[in-house]
Amino acid sequence: MALRIRTIEWEDPNQLVEPMRNLSGLEFLQKIARRELPPPPIGALMQFNVVEVSPGRAVFAAQPEEFHYNPIGVVHGGLAATLLDSAMGCAIHSMLPLGVGYTTLEIKVNFVRALTVATGPVRSEAEVVHMGSRTATAQGRLVDSKGKLYAHATTTCLILSQQRSE
Amino acid sequence: MALRIRTIEWEDPNQLVEPMRNLSGLEFLQKIARRELPPPPIGALMQFNVVEVSPGRAVFAAQPEEFHYNPIGVVHGGLAATLLDSAMGCAIHSMLPLGVGYTTLEIKVNFVRALTVATGPVRSEAEVVHMGSRTATAQGRLVDSKGKLYAHATTTCLILSQQRSE
Amino acid sequence: MALRIRTIEWEDPNQLVEPMRNLSGLEFLQKIARRELPPPPIGALMQFNVVEVSPGRAVFAAQPEEFHYNPIGVVHGGLAATLLDSAMGCAIHSMLPLGVGYTTLEIKVNFVRALTVATGPVRSEAEVVHMGSRTATAQGRLVDSKGKLYAHATTTCLILSQQRSE
Amino acid sequence: MALRIRTIEWEDPNQLVEPMRNLSGLEFLQKIARRELPPPPIGALMQFNVVEVSPGRAVFAAQPEEFHYNPIGVVHGGLAATLLDSAMGCAIHSMLPLGVGYTTLEIKVNFVRALTVATGPVRSEAEVVHMGSRTATAQGRLVDSKGKLYAHATTTCLILSQQRSE
Repeated sequence: MALRIRTIEWEDPNQLVEPMRNLSGLEFLQKIARRELPPPPIGALMQFNVVEVSPGRAVFAAQPEEFHYNPIGVVHGGLAATLLDSAMGCAIHSMLPLGVGYTTLEIKVNFVRALTVATGPVRSEAEVVHMGSRTATAQGRLVDSKGKLYAHATTTCLILSQQRSE
Repeated sequence: MALRIRTIEWEDPNQLVEPMRNLSGLEFLQKIARRELPPPPIGALMQFNVVEVSPGRAVFAAQPEEFHYNPIGVVHGGLAATLLDSAMGCAIHSMLPLGVGYTTLEIKVNFVRALTVATGPVRSEAEVVHMGSRTATAQGRLVDSKGKLYAHATTTCLILSQQRSE
Repeated sequence: MALRIRTIEWEDPNQLVEPMRNLSGLEFLQKIARRELPPPPIGALMQFNVVEVSPGRAVFAAQPEEFHYNPIGVVHGGLAATLLDSAMGCAIHSMLPLGVGYTTLEIKVNFVRALTVATGPVRSEAEVVHMGSRTATAQGRLVDSKGKLYAHATTTCLILSQQRSE
Repeated sequence: MALRIRTIEWEDPNQLVEPMRNLSGLEFLQKIARRELPPPPIGALMQFNVVEVSPGRAVFAAQPEEFHYNPIGVVHGGLAATLLDSAMGCAIHSMLPLGVGYTTLEIKVNFVRALTVATGPVRSEAEVVHMGSRTATAQGRLVDSKGKLYAHATTTCLILSQQRSE
């Protein structure tokens, strides 16, 4: 049978709502990167976290594990999509001042090599491509510790300013 | 603090390799849907499973939970991407005869509404759009129990016939 | 040498600005379809035109010609992209009331068969998938007279209401 | 009425078939760039041409004109899509040895600013992102003479080796 067991712990994500509203995007994400705020539940679930945030750029780190596998014997593409979506969204979020939010309209992910448990640690590195007042775009790359490319992506986000959302 | 704990269990995904090689795509996926084969680890992790497979079509079911949340207070887009990637890939896989495999080249996902714990059960429904000898494309929709749309997607897959991979 | 010559004629596109501002999207596009307004220059250039517009749906017709060819011996993918972008954008435009505009944020086009001069007339058929207050999405298919599929696409558009742009 | 007239000349694209088969991708494209081979018809039609090709990189130049306009008062997105598709496809083609061809599976284009007749000359610059034995990906940017970004894109191409296509 070969049953595997893992216990996951996460914190109430509502703890992040108040800090998010009272900080710029950069300050909010850097507090998560420094562990001054709890990681979001999805990071605990899929075992990844943000490791660098600077204006217009964000990097996430993860390690492909057996629990990420799909039925055809490699890591599910959803892990790469989640890591790239996270890094690209945070690269854009890092440019937003206090009171301005965003939502992701779409992602496009190219998978160029399969991830397996033998891949070792991977980094999802993203940067803003276009920062407008109403929309923004970003691109990201998923690489292993030697810089080999596994996936790359782009995204389009909608900027939500306070006036507009009220 | 509000710490949450969940224990997940999954089976060795290597158990799926042998059946996958000895069955058509449709037979293989229907055995997973009927629980005659163990679900893949990613399904146990993210709490989703395949519920319908017919030639050229696949449906997955999931329920958005707090453990899927991102830092901005809603379910991470990675859940929708994973559910749509799964359903679209399986819709294509269901068309492949014994000895023919596939790999996903790219996915494109549009997020049209945020998923939350209040959304309730969702279905990711996909169908083949183009089935060629070397590549195939599919499209998918993520809807709630009333049919309301949350995300939609397309994919391009590469068909791997035995002759070509040898 | 085998030199080919073609003369194209088009009208000043500024003639369309005033009608566009004073009509709903549906009325504006239907006037172009009925030839009560001049076709846009790009249609004259690439030899295509809108043939049907109803709420949330638009159809364009074209005929692949030698002047659309790329250097590798078939019609350039830009023709399919242009026809699908046109039909998808107009499907969304057809839903917009007087005073509301749109701009296309992105298109994604899958090319599943090459177009050649032997293909004959093609139709680009598009429909709205999601109509929101700030963004909309649509999908389209490019088919020949027998319904054979040559390309399919999706788009994301930004809705520009008067209040927001002022 | 304000009718505009333009005469387009192009050469029989069949003249390109033989050179394409007998040259590497790089040699073939550089001969077009140096005008030792006729430009493809689509370039004559839409008034653009290849200006630089090196291994893994291609640049096209164009000037947005009134004849590229759509019905909503700016250049049709199809021009940017065509220019980016051309540059990305040629970046990949430039890496292919004699006897190996390619076909474009999909393009994804983000439009970040509208092109108008006031934009002046633009360049579509593309480079290979991933070069595999069966598929390749590339990315491109459309910029004006000051480097301002108007659109960016990615593509997935299928590599067609002689053995495989026979």
